[in-house]
Amino acid sequence: MTGEFQLIDAMVAVLGEVAGGSGVIVGPGDDAAVLALPPSHQLVVSTDTLVSGRHFPAAANADLIGYRSTAVATSDLAAMGAEPAWATVSLTAPELRRDWAEAFAHGVAQAARRFDLKIVGGNLARGPMNVSVTVHGHVPPGEALRRDGARTGDSLYVTGALGGAHLALANQRALADCRLQDLDSRTPAGRYWLPQPRLQLGVWLRGIASAAVDISDGLAADLAHLCQASGVSCNADLDAVPTAEGCDALDAASAGDDYELAFAAPPAQAPRIAALAAETNVAISRIGEMVDGAPRGVVWKRAGEIVQAPAGYRHF
Amino acid sequence: MTGEFQLIDAMVAVLGEVAGGSGVIVGPGDDAAVLALPPSHQLVVSTDTLVSGRHFPAAANADLIGYRSTAVATSDLAAMGAEPAWATVSLTAPELRRDWAEAFAHGVAQAARRFDLKIVGGNLARGPMNVSVTVHGHVPPGEALRRDGARTGDSLYVTGALGGAHLALANQRALADCRLQDLDSRTPAGRYWLPQPRLQLGVWLRGIASAAVDISDGLAADLAHLCQASGVSCNADLDAVPTAEGCDALDAASAGDDYELAFAAPPAQAPRIAALAAETNVAISRIGEMVDGAPRGVVWKRAGEIVQAPAGYRHF
Repeated sequence: MTGEFQLIDAMVAVLGEVAGGSGVIVGPGDDAAVLALPPSHQLVVSTDTLVSGRHFPAAANADLIGYRSTAVATSDLAAMGAEPAWATVSLTAPELRRDWAEAFAHGVAQAARRFDLKIVGGNLARGPMNVSVTVHGHVPPGEALRRDGARTGDSLYVTGALGGAHLALANQRALADCRLQDLDSRTPAGRYWLPQPRLQLGVWLRGIASAAVDISDGLAADLAHLCQASGVSCNADLDAVPTAEGCDALDAASAGDDYELAFAAPPAQAPRIAALAAETNVAISRIGEMVDGAPRGVVWKRAGEIVQAPAGYRHF
Repeated sequence: MTGEFQLIDAMVAVLGEVAGGSGVIVGPGDDAAVLALPPSHQLVVSTDTLVSGRHFPAAANADLIGYRSTAVATSDLAAMGAEPAWATVSLTAPELRRDWAEAFAHGVAQAARRFDLKIVGGNLARGPMNVSVTVHGHVPPGEALRRDGARTGDSLYVTGALGGAHLALANQRALADCRLQDLDSRTPAGRYWLPQPRLQLGVWLRGIASAAVDISDGLAADLAHLCQASGVSCNADLDAVPTAEGCDALDAASAGDDYELAFAAPPAQAPRIAALAAETNVAISRIGEMVDGAPRGVVWKRAGEIVQAPAGYRHF
């Protein structure tokens, strides 16, 4: 068994240029990282933990675990309209072989390169497998997309098509057999393992969206959070929910693991939103509107009839 | 069983004023926290993970787990000379009862209040117990205490008295029976559960120390890291290592869990260091000196004779 510090060195070597660069004064290897934020920007911080057997199949390949953990955490930066900057990665594992640790670091590095994140530190501990990633980004002062800004009359939008990752989850064995180098991000398994946080879109929505939320816990659940935070209610149309091929709208609105954004915007912004969709080549669907200030939550309709709200993903 | 979001709300309620305030533009409850760093300061970030049954007794009281996890992570800020600002706390637990979660949050809040940290976010997931805390602080540009600045001729110092937490670890049952409200931080069990990061001292050592390191993995191991990073070697005197009552010097130099600092400083700084010790009421012991540039590591002596280097704590 390789010692902890040798393993960390091996992982940092795999990270290569991803462990330093833009704004990184001190990277991995000291007690803490030292980082330079762009002048006059605010810091945006979020943390996500993935547990083996719960948030990914226990037998999955290490590089995919590394990639997915990094991508999932980064999606929260997209939902804030933040530009990604740095991340720390804490890995707890029952025993670490060097090849496994290097493959994990390779997956983290692939995601970091794609999202323009620097990996500036982390932690390695022995125990049941658990990956906790803390991501850091930045926004100009006051421009973060918050949950609490939606107002009555705003339109409600969702990005992408939902339910793809949910379809992939039906076949855990196939997910565990996936390999990073073979995976196509447009397939259900690719949607699951290689989430594509809407980072560019998030940045462009600053000043356009009145509120935004990452819908990783499911559209229905996270939309309810947005309404609660904003003190408004919402009428949402299940028939307008964009679905991945082969996925029912009810499943699509319930399923977690879609790292898409839901956001509200005043009707006057509709032309700019249409232009954004065209420019980014990301589908943006209008699925409802915000109504009166009493936060009774989300009213879902299908074919004009009120239906029961789709259930969200529950961690407990 | 209480739902995830109700539990988070209950924990944030326990945090109270610790979840907001200084520099916190958006605290817990959104996709990410938004934070304002003091103008022209650099960000300092570190993450630490504690695993149940490995880094604390599995049967321990929740408030102590929360306190210790927060304190341990904060010690890395002290070692960088950073002023503490914010933390995120990720808790993974097999099942969460509301009273357990609230007690955990109470411990986190106690530590946060003591170290002047704001708890700005986190994550809650189901799985084997694991606590991962990411701490954020700040320093004026270029003033962070790094590991790599020690030079030949520098004196080597260590703070506090070592081995107290190690003594407490001999009785796991007693550690599991401790309660936050009864603990005295001067007892071995108190040293274990309520580490006191040397935050004030770290800030004051800016411009005095040439290099510093947190010795949570044991003085011997972490001193070797400092030498390696600085490209120097070191002669260290085991007889000069300050020990907790009842602890042998060899054990004290090997044992982990002492959240003290080791640091190097040019001999000309000796008077200022003596003044700092007097002012902060923290013992600062000179235990050796840095020698020639070849990083062959730390040479330990006892009664003038070279002895085998004390073993450090190994996570793997």
